Amino acid sequence: MKKFINLPENCENEMIQGLVKAFPGYVKKLDCGNVIVRSEKKRNKVALISGGGSGHEPAHAGYVGTGMLDCAVPGAVFTSPTPDQIYEGIKAIATPEGVLMIIKNYTGDIMNFEMAQEMAEMDDIKVAGVVVDDDVAVQNSTWTTGRRGVAGTIFVHKIAGAMAETGASLEEVERVAKETIANVRTMGVALTPCTVPAAGTPGFSIGEDELEMGIGIHGEPGVNRQKMKPVNEIIDELLDHILADLDFAGSEVAVMLNSSGGTPLMELYIAYDHLADVLAENNVKVYRSYVGEYMTSLEMQGLSVTLLRLNDERKALLNAAADTIAFKEFGGRS
Amino acid sequence: MKKFINLPENCENEMIQGLVKAFPGYVKKLDCGNVIVRSEKKRNKVALISGGGSGHEPAHAGYVGTGMLDCAVPGAVFTSPTPDQIYEGIKAIATPEGVLMIIKNYTGDIMNFEMAQEMAEMDDIKVAGVVVDDDVAVQNSTWTTGRRGVAGTIFVHKIAGAMAETGASLEEVERVAKETIANVRTMGVALTPCTVPAAGTPGFSIGEDELEMGIGIHGEPGVNRQKMKPVNEIIDELLDHILADLDFAGSEVAVMLNSSGGTPLMELYIAYDHLADVLAENNVKVYRSYVGEYMTSLEMQGLSVTLLRLNDERKALLNAAADTIAFKEFGGRS
Repeated sequence: MKKFINLPENCENEMIQGLVKAFPGYVKKLDCGNVIVRSEKKRNKVALISGGGSGHEPAHAGYVGTGMLDCAVPGAVFTSPTPDQIYEGIKAIATPEGVLMIIKNYTGDIMNFEMAQEMAEMDDIKVAGVVVDDDVAVQNSTWTTGRRGVAGTIFVHKIAGAMAETGASLEEVERVAKETIANVRTMGVALTPCTVPAAGTPGFSIGEDELEMGIGIHGEPGVNRQKMKPVNEIIDELLDHILADLDFAGSEVAVMLNSSGGTPLMELYIAYDHLADVLAENNVKVYRSYVGEYMTSLEMQGLSVTLLRLNDERKALLNAAADTIAFKEFGGRS
Repeated sequence: MKKFINLPENCENEMIQGLVKAFPGYVKKLDCGNVIVRSEKKRNKVALISGGGSGHEPAHAGYVGTGMLDCAVPGAVFTSPTPDQIYEGIKAIATPEGVLMIIKNYTGDIMNFEMAQEMAEMDDIKVAGVVVDDDVAVQNSTWTTGRRGVAGTIFVHKIAGAMAETGASLEEVERVAKETIANVRTMGVALTPCTVPAAGTPGFSIGEDELEMGIGIHGEPGVNRQKMKPVNEIIDELLDHILADLDFAGSEVAVMLNSSGGTPLMELYIAYDHLADVLAENNVKVYRSYVGEYMTSLEMQGLSVTLLRLNDERKALLNAAADTIAFKEFGGRS
């Protein structure tokens, strides 16, 4: 394991400390633990909380700020945050309008967010939750019943966050989040594994001439192991799965081409070149593209494709201003 | 070589095509070759052009847009753009106010930008150029006489770009660019090499327990090869060199902690945690931080630290609005 770290057991704490030191204008950490909230609490709106294991940076602390989240709770690497941690986050951001939890579909995450919700409700905090399960690769997985929640979660942060910023009710923010989830699909692929610092060895092994199609963001197995092939064929296969799962033809979409952490931008742009062509051939109209690191898996060399079907409401909310560490949108574009 | 590519010889063209397809609102490509300009030409201001070999994405095409560059000319991977390519770029963006070339200090880049300048001047285009040489690691290098130009170049884009946007004269934009160069220092380190697609094998070899201190952005040798050590000690050593080179004590600075492409955000934040402490111990006041991929070396696992000494003028220009693919600044912050 060759990483820019100190002691493996300190990675999560040092990372959170570094994040907060680098961006004090955006975020602060609660004294009680690794709970990241906006540097200034926003009132008079529904508050949004998300979280999950660390190792997916900039998810989710990078999305705390204007127009997106109010709180992110990072667990240990690839490990759910604890109910206490989530509960402290909910308490810190709660407003009379209520709190919406955006949960990726992993069994541990759901259990712990739901326990935190129960604790908060005993304090008379109004809480609702939505579960993102955008990964079309597999039904059920190492840590999931049903589909996994992956990069499409960022679109849920953006759209629900923008809705909350308008002063909409908890019911309305929950509705738009659920509609976003119903219209977003993702699938990923990896060429290399990644190494959890505390483990010290790669999560799986893969040949120099192999790829894992449909990989999960923790390195969970995908649909199959294949021989390496040109990226155009990889993109074809990802889109085959995604387009077969939901009818995107004739729709406007937001596209996210996400790096798993170790994939350089050059390769993402090369992949995008063909991705754009295949979408056009399938009569899918790209409204806006996002290319970069949004939901990573440590240093994994991999990528994922996310398509979000848009309507006028989701388009307007996607365009609304956002100012966070990792996602900035000026707002007001056509 | 395991990369998300098609044919190695098509990487540069497919990357540029993908970039332009992904972000048509920001950039377009000239028909004559790989010359990237703003999607709408900005008039009544000095125009800025930069460029260099590909493989450093998002540099420089990711910085084309409001408040930064008007044109980027990417060469083949780690290869200078041609004089013709640069000349076409200059012609495309030229305004009566003139054109400023921002050149990283590599012998080939300087030669080709200067030839392009001569060609443009024969067309009566007013052209000036500045050379960025921020890397404190070594004097002279594989492709450089003097110091190498690296991540500090992004601050020159930002500050000179903001100055140009105010309508300042070419002389004024050149002055502020030169003052930025005089006040910016960088040094990098790498744990792994990177592979130029057309070469197919890594640029150098390094042991599993070794790091290269002071590496260049093309994998050029640094100050020495060392045994791996904790990131805190690595940061200490980088700052020792930078702080010995220019007196930052008592100054406000902008800090850039840059990934070489393969380094995950988690490791950058861990590094930042200690970086912030060491700067504070040395009475260097951090005004603004930038943590992420700004000037990469393909998939290299490495990082660099850049410090820019600020004055009121540079602070205001750093804060001015910018809207590019890879660098967004809302403007108007304190």
